[in-house]
Amino acid sequence: MEGEVDREERDPESNPLNEPLLKRSRTLSSNPLAMVGAKVSYIESLDYEINENDLFKHDWRSRSKVQVLQYIFSKWTLAFLVGLLTGIIATLINLAIENIAGYKLLAVVGYIQEDRYLAGFLYFTGFNFVLTLVAAVLCVCFAPTAAGPGIPEIKAYLNGVDTPNMFGVTTLLVKIFGSIGAVSAGLDLGKEGPLVHIGSCIASLLGQGGPDNYRVKWRWLRYFNNDRDRRDLITCGSSSGVCAAFRAPVGGVLFALEEVATWWRSALLWRTFFSTAVVVVVLRAFIEICNSGKCGLFGQGGLIMFDVSNVTVRYHVMDIFPVVIIGVIGGLLGSLYNHLLHKVLRLYNLINQKGRMHKLFLSLAVGLFTSLCQYGLPFLVKCTPCGSSLPESECPTNGRSGNFKQFNCPNGYYNDLATLLLTTNDDAVRNIFSSSTPSEFHTFSLLIFFALYCILGLITFGIAVPSGLFLPIILMGSGYGRLLGMLMGPQTNIDQGLFAVLGAASLMAGSMRMTVSLCVIFLELTNNLLLLPITMIVLLIAKTVGDCFNPSIYEIILHLKGLPFLDANPEPWMRNLTVGELVDVKPEVVALQGVEKVACIVDVLKNTTHNAFPVVDNGVIPPTGPADGAKELHGLILRAHLIQALKKKWFLKEKRRTEEWEVREKFTWVELADREGNIEQVAVTSEEMDMFIDLHPLTNTTPFTVLESISVAKAMVLFRQVGLRHLLIVPKYQASGVSPVIGILTRQDFLACNILQAFPHLEKSKVREKRN
Amino acid sequence: MEGEVDREERDPESNPLNEPLLKRSRTLSSNPLAMVGAKVSYIESLDYEINENDLFKHDWRSRSKVQVLQYIFSKWTLAFLVGLLTGIIATLINLAIENIAGYKLLAVVGYIQEDRYLAGFLYFTGFNFVLTLVAAVLCVCFAPTAAGPGIPEIKAYLNGVDTPNMFGVTTLLVKIFGSIGAVSAGLDLGKEGPLVHIGSCIASLLGQGGPDNYRVKWRWLRYFNNDRDRRDLITCGSSSGVCAAFRAPVGGVLFALEEVATWWRSALLWRTFFSTAVVVVVLRAFIEICNSGKCGLFGQGGLIMFDVSNVTVRYHVMDIFPVVIIGVIGGLLGSLYNHLLHKVLRLYNLINQKGRMHKLFLSLAVGLFTSLCQYGLPFLVKCTPCGSSLPESECPTNGRSGNFKQFNCPNGYYNDLATLLLTTNDDAVRNIFSSSTPSEFHTFSLLIFFALYCILGLITFGIAVPSGLFLPIILMGSGYGRLLGMLMGPQTNIDQGLFAVLGAASLMAGSMRMTVSLCVIFLELTNNLLLLPITMIVLLIAKTVGDCFNPSIYEIILHLKGLPFLDANPEPWMRNLTVGELVDVKPEVVALQGVEKVACIVDVLKNTTHNAFPVVDNGVIPPTGPADGAKELHGLILRAHLIQALKKKWFLKEKRRTEEWEVREKFTWVELADREGNIEQVAVTSEEMDMFIDLHPLTNTTPFTVLESISVAKAMVLFRQVGLRHLLIVPKYQASGVSPVIGILTRQDFLACNILQAFPHLEKSKVREKRN
Repeated sequence: MEGEVDREERDPESNPLNEPLLKRSRTLSSNPLAMVGAKVSYIESLDYEINENDLFKHDWRSRSKVQVLQYIFSKWTLAFLVGLLTGIIATLINLAIENIAGYKLLAVVGYIQEDRYLAGFLYFTGFNFVLTLVAAVLCVCFAPTAAGPGIPEIKAYLNGVDTPNMFGVTTLLVKIFGSIGAVSAGLDLGKEGPLVHIGSCIASLLGQGGPDNYRVKWRWLRYFNNDRDRRDLITCGSSSGVCAAFRAPVGGVLFALEEVATWWRSALLWRTFFSTAVVVVVLRAFIEICNSGKCGLFGQGGLIMFDVSNVTVRYHVMDIFPVVIIGVIGGLLGSLYNHLLHKVLRLYNLINQKGRMHKLFLSLAVGLFTSLCQYGLPFLVKCTPCGSSLPESECPTNGRSGNFKQFNCPNGYYNDLATLLLTTNDDAVRNIFSSSTPSEFHTFSLLIFFALYCILGLITFGIAVPSGLFLPIILMGSGYGRLLGMLMGPQTNIDQGLFAVLGAASLMAGSMRMTVSLCVIFLELTNNLLLLPITMIVLLIAKTVGDCFNPSIYEIILHLKGLPFLDANPEPWMRNLTVGELVDVKPEVVALQGVEKVACIVDVLKNTTHNAFPVVDNGVIPPTGPADGAKELHGLILRAHLIQALKKKWFLKEKRRTEEWEVREKFTWVELADREGNIEQVAVTSEEMDMFIDLHPLTNTTPFTVLESISVAKAMVLFRQVGLRHLLIVPKYQASGVSPVIGILTRQDFLACNILQAFPHLEKSKVREKRN
Repeated sequence: MEGEVDREERDPESNPLNEPLLKRSRTLSSNPLAMVGAKVSYIESLDYEINENDLFKHDWRSRSKVQVLQYIFSKWTLAFLVGLLTGIIATLINLAIENIAGYKLLAVVGYIQEDRYLAGFLYFTGFNFVLTLVAAVLCVCFAPTAAGPGIPEIKAYLNGVDTPNMFGVTTLLVKIFGSIGAVSAGLDLGKEGPLVHIGSCIASLLGQGGPDNYRVKWRWLRYFNNDRDRRDLITCGSSSGVCAAFRAPVGGVLFALEEVATWWRSALLWRTFFSTAVVVVVLRAFIEICNSGKCGLFGQGGLIMFDVSNVTVRYHVMDIFPVVIIGVIGGLLGSLYNHLLHKVLRLYNLINQKGRMHKLFLSLAVGLFTSLCQYGLPFLVKCTPCGSSLPESECPTNGRSGNFKQFNCPNGYYNDLATLLLTTNDDAVRNIFSSSTPSEFHTFSLLIFFALYCILGLITFGIAVPSGLFLPIILMGSGYGRLLGMLMGPQTNIDQGLFAVLGAASLMAGSMRMTVSLCVIFLELTNNLLLLPITMIVLLIAKTVGDCFNPSIYEIILHLKGLPFLDANPEPWMRNLTVGELVDVKPEVVALQGVEKVACIVDVLKNTTHNAFPVVDNGVIPPTGPADGAKELHGLILRAHLIQALKKKWFLKEKRRTEEWEVREKFTWVELADREGNIEQVAVTSEEMDMFIDLHPLTNTTPFTVLESISVAKAMVLFRQVGLRHLLIVPKYQASGVSPVIGILTRQDFLACNILQAFPHLEKSKVREKRN
């Protein structure tokens, strides 16, 4: 009922309902390919359905109380470990960044104080160049999937799309060290996205018992060798990552819930919450240790990153206007940013596809440009006198952080642009959020800052280093917010620091389109509960405005990568198409018999790429008595299980149904959980080709089905809500000779773009509709 | 994969898988009855499925862009109105309570200052008696459904259970005035639960266009005349209610998400957030107005109810022990409370069923006991000298609120128990949460306070007045927390006020079993972000401990009321039962033909209580060519639509299929959305009995189906995830003469208790399992 409605049939009288509305044209193409890194890869679907075959049923019944408790206990232990490791790694990354960037900045300040500007510049640029080089080389050579934030791929994973090489050990290590390098190099990117990816990697590795080649095969871990449990773990991992990035436990849970996850249960909410609680305890413990000065340059920060709780928020009814303006402009800017970033990313894809050296050069060029601007631009602005209200220890400073940097100015003066540029990104945000400092920044400096970070925000994201989107958008937004605050200064009594906070929030909402989670993240970042009502209004307005123009930035990236993401809401025109019509344009379904000839199975496996086959018994006797041509739909068998049967040579000399003990002697439930294997690895002799396999005990007897007359919209709701990989279509007719299954629907069949390819008629109506 | 596993079959060898595990005994009974108020009522299921019949399809295609925009716009307008009205009503309730209770307390203090203790007592008791009487009479005589919190029924509604008379105007009014009366009378209950119910009532009334008999029939409102949109609105209403109660907008959204709602979409999250934002803006505006003194005795409170942000939270690793102890004891006490409250409610049900006067007497007796204890107990404790550290204006006070009440003490002394008892519940919480006052309360006073509120918390909840559970539990929990803090005083450096906060949180989690939403609600109540990590740990521990003993309090009440609530997770033994086995013990399904005789339809409607019937065409020609006994499953028709067809006398002289224009002349889509009507209201002449009705255009052609071989567990997941009312079972056999539909599953068929009645075999195994 959401969204638009198809207006294809303007005159309903002209088209009686009993006729199909659509003319078929081409075959529905299934194209499971996506862009991973700069390459195009083959994409698998995940299978969240419980494969209820005889072996599973037996295993299920024979699980003892102890095993069940073991399962529950290990689930919580894994959630604990995910939180613990994410917390520790996040702290170590923070430590490394603060120290590397800190010593770099201190050295540069030293050169400047000696008036050796060129040496300072060379040191600054050279240092940043090396750091960028390290990050980019790691990414380009070892793990191309570690580039970017990783959040869109995780979002797709939790939707059921298995992007290859996303959660390996190499990716994890490259992400950690690449992120340290890139952030220390002062590039306009954050460690938030990478931390989410790191958390998910840790979760995935823990769930499968270690790296691919050195897996631990503990007995209790076998219960986690399925897509459902791994999905839950990765959800925990991603929220732990957000929590570690922003020190925002509740915000982390909500981020995973609102933005990343597709399926959600109350029990999972609770487990995710537990993981983030562990993360926050780890962070606090480290902060406690670092406060005693044992962590080098790290140690000034508390649990709240950008504390603005000292501002008393007093606003009146008239303040609603600036708030609305912030929201509207934030929404406009956010959607404009999405639009431009889309263009830039498409251009970058062309460059990146040309080869590794191109990727490397692009990253280094962006890095050089960033260093140049950060060092050079502060020379453009005039020095500002410190004023008597500020204590001497605060203004001017030459330390690593601090709100009034001396830079090239004489004593008693500070350079306001250097305060924002020649510092770490976190400190820049802290400085621009600073409240009760209405005259600290000049309009000209803020304009330069805003313009620079707009450009950097657009050109940095697509380069081959781990990069988060949160911090660039916060930087851009805070610049715009503070500028707006200065312009509106006389008309409002909201503090300029709060304007910066609200500007950041509005741009985030305008670009990422989240509401509740952003609200809580900002609450946890700034520790000012009284800001909540206006933050809510700003977020709602910015999201609404942004939604009028384009989808959220993550959806744009998902689309750009070609990941087959299933949206929550079916398109309106999907109600006018039945799955029967859809299946007519697909290749015919390949069904196997309950006791099938080996040759036939090998043939089917070699000549199709299907991942599951319906098992149909012919000539059975239905409950109503003998009937000619009666058939029985026994269930659905997976390709992986067929290959295992061939590998294990589970062959019968005669065509007969087996007893249950026979299959249990040959297979265990654990083996069937493994879904790897290729038909090319299987060698079958010609003698064996004439033998038979009894597929009954390996068949999932409880597949989900829909009638052929159901609309695509409804089938898609079922497919997504239950988390399926295959959906069988059964006929609405009941008669001898009719096949009991007329098609199988997969993820690709529900993608709007694929359907539109086969039914261009619908596309035309869609275009026409847009034009109206 | 969650939870326990059925261990019925200890020796799997003894039972081959191909045989059914279960022996049938009785017929599966569908018993759609529940206890509403003190009466047993007939319960309907809601229908969230889109009824895709020909009329709907036509309407869907013919909706213009303008209509779609109108729909979206009105959806947001309604969400706005829900927030606005809930905010206004909540403020008015607050105003009324603060003023009534305030003037009452001032008068009592006046008597006490004149040493007229008996007069004070009589005044206090009499005043409370009258208020209780008003609340109880309203509830008993006009709207029995307004008693209690209403949250369990709303939770059930959002799960698909339509409890009668829950959302009417009478219920709303009684809830408002009853709540004012009951809370002002000083009873141990809160206005939180009632506010949730009030928000939901407002949402429901707005969605249907006003009271039942005076509905506005605006055109754009017709789009909201379906269960799906009403569900969304009521979700908005319930979160607005929580937001208004605690001034916690994010907490409200999360409460609705975690505790109340069954289905959830990202779009709904956003709309709910909008509603709560409106509520919080309304609340702020009123607070702004009241701060200028125009609201009588109301006006001291800010947006944060129990602010403890002035406490600096400094805790060390060793403080983890008291925190764990609070959590464990809170969990134990919470589950004990649930257990005892269950017993009390069962006893109260027996009393309440005896008649109105019994209900009334029970309420008044509890009210009298409360007044007696609140006035009498403070005389038991000794007076405490004020001490020099406190300013004279604060200690002692004789005002309405204040932390050091003089009561019967001489000047310069205060009575610490009167501070907690002779005040409004909100002020009592504020006083016991007060920090940096380690020696304010004596152990003896706190013991009395805790014991009294344990007793009151158990005996007050079930009486016939609107009552929330939050505040009683917070009062109990804060008493226990502060007591614990005093006992552990020397071992810890956590403030006693924080102990009280944590105690309240732990008891809430121990009884209600929420995590994220409670965490955010407590954050928004207390405005102390640094408390977050320990609050999280306390909540997690208390919930875990509580879950070991019994389900949450709302689930207990749901069960007690007999509401057919569908749990998120199927029972483990449901995997061992197929829907085919389930359907065998049900009465046979009653199918209609595509063009059916009127007499047959009337007969079926009169003699069954089914709400939907499959429509099967006989003798059709399947795509494979002519076959004997071929049948086609056309879809599912609702009872309501059959009755409308009879009412409108849409009869055909001959047995033929109609054209689409014919049905559109007779019916509109709006009419079909109305689901009311009774077969007794329909008069059909004997001539008409021989005529025919073409059911095809009224039939939902896209019902959801499952194979007969699917397990009950999987079917239940589908049923609940997609939000169905009817689920068709199709045969796995394909042959002539087999019926294309072999059963219909409804909500009642998935309830564990109903299945166990028909298969006592499973029950035995369950009991045995528990014993082990």
